[in-house]
Amino acid sequence: MTIIPDLHPRYKSLMTRDKLVAGVEAGITSQQGLIAHGRGEAFDYLIGEQTLKSARRATEVAAAMLLAAKKPVLSVNGNVAALVAKEMVELSELLNAPLEVNIFYRTEKRAKRIKALLEKQGANKVLGDLRNAVIPGIEHSRAKVDRDGLYSADVVLAPLEDGDRCEALVNMGKKVITIDLNPLSRTSKQASVSIVDDIERALQNLILAVKEDKKAKNDLAALSESYDNNENLKAVIKEIVSRLKKEDLR
Amino acid sequence: MTIIPDLHPRYKSLMTRDKLVAGVEAGITSQQGLIAHGRGEAFDYLIGEQTLKSARRATEVAAAMLLAAKKPVLSVNGNVAALVAKEMVELSELLNAPLEVNIFYRTEKRAKRIKALLEKQGANKVLGDLRNAVIPGIEHSRAKVDRDGLYSADVVLAPLEDGDRCEALVNMGKKVITIDLNPLSRTSKQASVSIVDDIERALQNLILAVKEDKKAKNDLAALSESYDNNENLKAVIKEIVSRLKKEDLR
Repeated sequence: MTIIPDLHPRYKSLMTRDKLVAGVEAGITSQQGLIAHGRGEAFDYLIGEQTLKSARRATEVAAAMLLAAKKPVLSVNGNVAALVAKEMVELSELLNAPLEVNIFYRTEKRAKRIKALLEKQGANKVLGDLRNAVIPGIEHSRAKVDRDGLYSADVVLAPLEDGDRCEALVNMGKKVITIDLNPLSRTSKQASVSIVDDIERALQNLILAVKEDKKAKNDLAALSESYDNNENLKAVIKEIVSRLKKEDLR
Repeated sequence: MTIIPDLHPRYKSLMTRDKLVAGVEAGITSQQGLIAHGRGEAFDYLIGEQTLKSARRATEVAAAMLLAAKKPVLSVNGNVAALVAKEMVELSELLNAPLEVNIFYRTEKRAKRIKALLEKQGANKVLGDLRNAVIPGIEHSRAKVDRDGLYSADVVLAPLEDGDRCEALVNMGKKVITIDLNPLSRTSKQASVSIVDDIERALQNLILAVKEDKKAKNDLAALSESYDNNENLKAVIKEIVSRLKKEDLR
């Protein structure tokens, strides 16, 4: 085990990396997940490692959509489990929505470990064992989900999701909310609501937004009516461009 | 038409990932190295997976600087070893400069394996065992280097280097050449010459440039005299901005 000096200017980023590496060592996260995280880090850099206004807007719409859903389901993969297991469980409770283990590089061992981790964090309904239904339009082994979970959900929160699967879920008529730092990714472009933000920041904000909506009894339909995901992604790219232009190189 | 369809550059990128994963399995590359690589991938995508004119310029200056050096040293970490061990050994021979194993997440086992790999590729002088000197200004365990190597070098090639260490080496009065795909990284900003390019492309170009300079007996001082690293980084950012602006979201 290496110790990260807490004086290091990249301390938080290094700590997050360590959480993921621990996830790999615990058999929860895949090695491909590490590379994917690195790609996300680069985009986080470009947006200034902060929650942009556009991400806040998407998060509010996501909260409203999840609260208004008839059958919301929260999808959990290896990176999500390593970084925000606790927050996903809390969200699941707040929304009374099940979690479903849904991993791209699937092994039964890894799926079991993720389920166990979520249950240890207090989850009482974790789907993803049955895989008795198939999402049309994607390769069979990656298409299997639970009939009572992702398959029949009307609103899906699928953070860090693969582009193909995101598209297939949208094609089934579902509303898909993603969290993905890359505004250019196929996932971000395919989703109904793309939260372009770091997963840890996004989950914290999403939990707050759900609590706020519940307390204030906000008009959920009104919150999402005027939302245009495409415009929102353009705003992210605009922000990146403007930051790059201002970049004050020494 | 999008210039960046998604973040999974298919072709060459898969080969590179395989090399890194093999590096992890061989105990040469760290898991954190995979994350760092993912970050690089994102920036490579943003520059169009090509060697920009600015990178070519930096590479030429780097070649001249290394050839003019009194005591050049080439630093090798886990990702460098997994991706360009052969090229680093060739460069070491061309420049008559020692290699030094210099890894951020250091274990003795990993350092030994990297050394063995370099020697297997034909290296005859690999430093990094003694660690009998300390770079001032950074945390002790990461500051140890060889007195006869990095410590006393006047020009250091440190590809994929940590920002802190890059800064500390510059503060010692050394010229530091980095290879880093992120033009905004602390490493890129701190270095004397930042080659913003993929490590495999950069090493190939650097070797060619060194051979060219040797053959043509170029005026090495003249080559680097007019070089402004800051201006060069700005050119990279300009390129990224222009590519992002063309990005056509559906």
